[in-house]
Amino acid sequence: MSLPRIAVDAMGGDEGVRVMVEGAALARRRHDKFQFLLVGDRERIETALAHHPGLTGASEILHCDDVVGGDEKPTQALRRAKTTSMGLAVDAVKHGAAGAAVSAGNTGALMAMSKLALRTMPGIDRPALAALIPTLKDQDVVMLDLGANRECDARNLVQFAIMGAAYARIVHGYDAPRVRLLNIGTEETKGTEQLQDAASQLKAATGLALTFEGFVEADKINRGDCDVIVTDGFSGNIALKAIEGAARFVTDLLRNAFSSSFRSKVGFLVSRPATELLRHHLDPNNHNGAVFLGLNGVVVKSHGSASAKGVANAVEVAARLLEDDITNRIAQDLAELGEDRLRDSTRGEAAAK
Amino acid sequence: MSLPRIAVDAMGGDEGVRVMVEGAALARRRHDKFQFLLVGDRERIETALAHHPGLTGASEILHCDDVVGGDEKPTQALRRAKTTSMGLAVDAVKHGAAGAAVSAGNTGALMAMSKLALRTMPGIDRPALAALIPTLKDQDVVMLDLGANRECDARNLVQFAIMGAAYARIVHGYDAPRVRLLNIGTEETKGTEQLQDAASQLKAATGLALTFEGFVEADKINRGDCDVIVTDGFSGNIALKAIEGAARFVTDLLRNAFSSSFRSKVGFLVSRPATELLRHHLDPNNHNGAVFLGLNGVVVKSHGSASAKGVANAVEVAARLLEDDITNRIAQDLAELGEDRLRDSTRGEAAAK
Repeated sequence: MSLPRIAVDAMGGDEGVRVMVEGAALARRRHDKFQFLLVGDRERIETALAHHPGLTGASEILHCDDVVGGDEKPTQALRRAKTTSMGLAVDAVKHGAAGAAVSAGNTGALMAMSKLALRTMPGIDRPALAALIPTLKDQDVVMLDLGANRECDARNLVQFAIMGAAYARIVHGYDAPRVRLLNIGTEETKGTEQLQDAASQLKAATGLALTFEGFVEADKINRGDCDVIVTDGFSGNIALKAIEGAARFVTDLLRNAFSSSFRSKVGFLVSRPATELLRHHLDPNNHNGAVFLGLNGVVVKSHGSASAKGVANAVEVAARLLEDDITNRIAQDLAELGEDRLRDSTRGEAAAK
Repeated sequence: MSLPRIAVDAMGGDEGVRVMVEGAALARRRHDKFQFLLVGDRERIETALAHHPGLTGASEILHCDDVVGGDEKPTQALRRAKTTSMGLAVDAVKHGAAGAAVSAGNTGALMAMSKLALRTMPGIDRPALAALIPTLKDQDVVMLDLGANRECDARNLVQFAIMGAAYARIVHGYDAPRVRLLNIGTEETKGTEQLQDAASQLKAATGLALTFEGFVEADKINRGDCDVIVTDGFSGNIALKAIEGAARFVTDLLRNAFSSSFRSKVGFLVSRPATELLRHHLDPNNHNGAVFLGLNGVVVKSHGSASAKGVANAVEVAARLLEDDITNRIAQDLAELGEDRLRDSTRGEAAAK
């Protein structure tokens, strides 16, 4: 089966065209079926493409002059949805010129543009931002929402659980990923009303392609004991950034200590494999590609400072979601949830006794 | 000046009497003015004291049979406030038999008992749990609330800022500690209404013994670029635990890598100073002693799994807050805030143009 091509916002991200094109070229070297629509300044894209002849034949360029600024407010950027590289990349998905879009630009603007162009899918109230977080086990954990929705009700959280599980099934290949809600304790009485409500809904639901396992505390995120962690966007963002900061803190401490004495310097050299492993696990480029779930179309956010390798990962994430039809998987589970509710209401009082 | 004695709940914590008494003995060896009221099973306390003759002369024992369980619900524990070692330790502060209380027991129960016995101080709506978080700089950062209040309004957050600053002035010795609000971005428009509201109140306030510097994101908590980080209890708990978990994640990765090859094992031995430094910075015993701020009295929570060194730290924190009269410092700043509001309202329309 030939894969629909992927639209790449070639202008977004800290490094812009060069890295985005190099990332696409790297992904293409790994998967020769990949095709691209590169959106942005034609001249600069062509200059970058000159270094990647393999990519040239697999790419079309969609020229535009305008770029969304990194600090621009989403509402402001939205007005230029039809003229910016980000807006046109998303628009290509809407009109079928591409199957998925990848951008390393302004997250808020990308979310706003994606919602406007692709619309939220039926049965989902709000899209969410999901990412893969490294763990001690062999596989990453899917975590959402990471900042798209500041405040969430129980209904949102249940929908996030379904979307996250669909994503985890694609990434991990499990039939029923283990899902937990992020909370400040694991007892049933802990946390906000919304969390307790969402937990009882998920516990009561049957037929969903997921296993709900209750609450998880933030110190267990990196353990790898569950496959999906569901949270509101505020707490999710706090947790994700706290993890990033703490990991950097520990490695900075180590670096300081290693450079403080000759003995330690020698130790550092000898223990290279350890620090390599650390780099591999903590390098955001190995986990790049946050996904907007719940839209009628696939949009992947590459980290603004991602390297070409990181961009290639984001492109691969987009291709995978496309190939495995994430939107349809979510729709199926939503239908199950709907039938569940139907069953519940027809069973009515009989079930209550 | 002689210091009022410190009531120690000798029964709380994972290890119970032995560690609590050893901790008190360690603190006493460091500060010979310390006096203790040891609350709990007399026989077991006397057995533990036998190993610490220096402490025996400086201690009185208050016997009781009952202990608050680690998993007990606060509401349930509250009913036994007059019979448990935790309840009696707090009660000793209320009745002046001690100046401060230290317990390593159930946090929720300790908070509930402290609130009931000592009452919230005038001008404070809700007490908060504050702790010292390690940073890359020489000094820890004060962070609050860490879980006492699940949801907070702007007024709560402003009061937390004042309480945290008072604590930081005592711990760090600064006149006007740098205070920031934890948020998911640093722009003024980011975050919840409560956060934006609290920020504008803190910005507008004059005469407070603190410097308000806006928002901080969770990845900067361990940087040490500010002295106090203010947050609601839910986000604070998420951030704190995410940091703990990530630090453990990184050190576990390192340990795995170091033990995977002979070359790495050698590296580990040679780089001992680095790992020692890491241990020193990350060991919770070096940062032990979470403080309930905003009560008419000093109560310090020692970590349930703290070592004797950790308990000694918690005792020292209690003594320091007592000596420097934290309650009075908070009251002074609250009075300033009140005068501020008075000035604002008398200036009225004139100031608005």
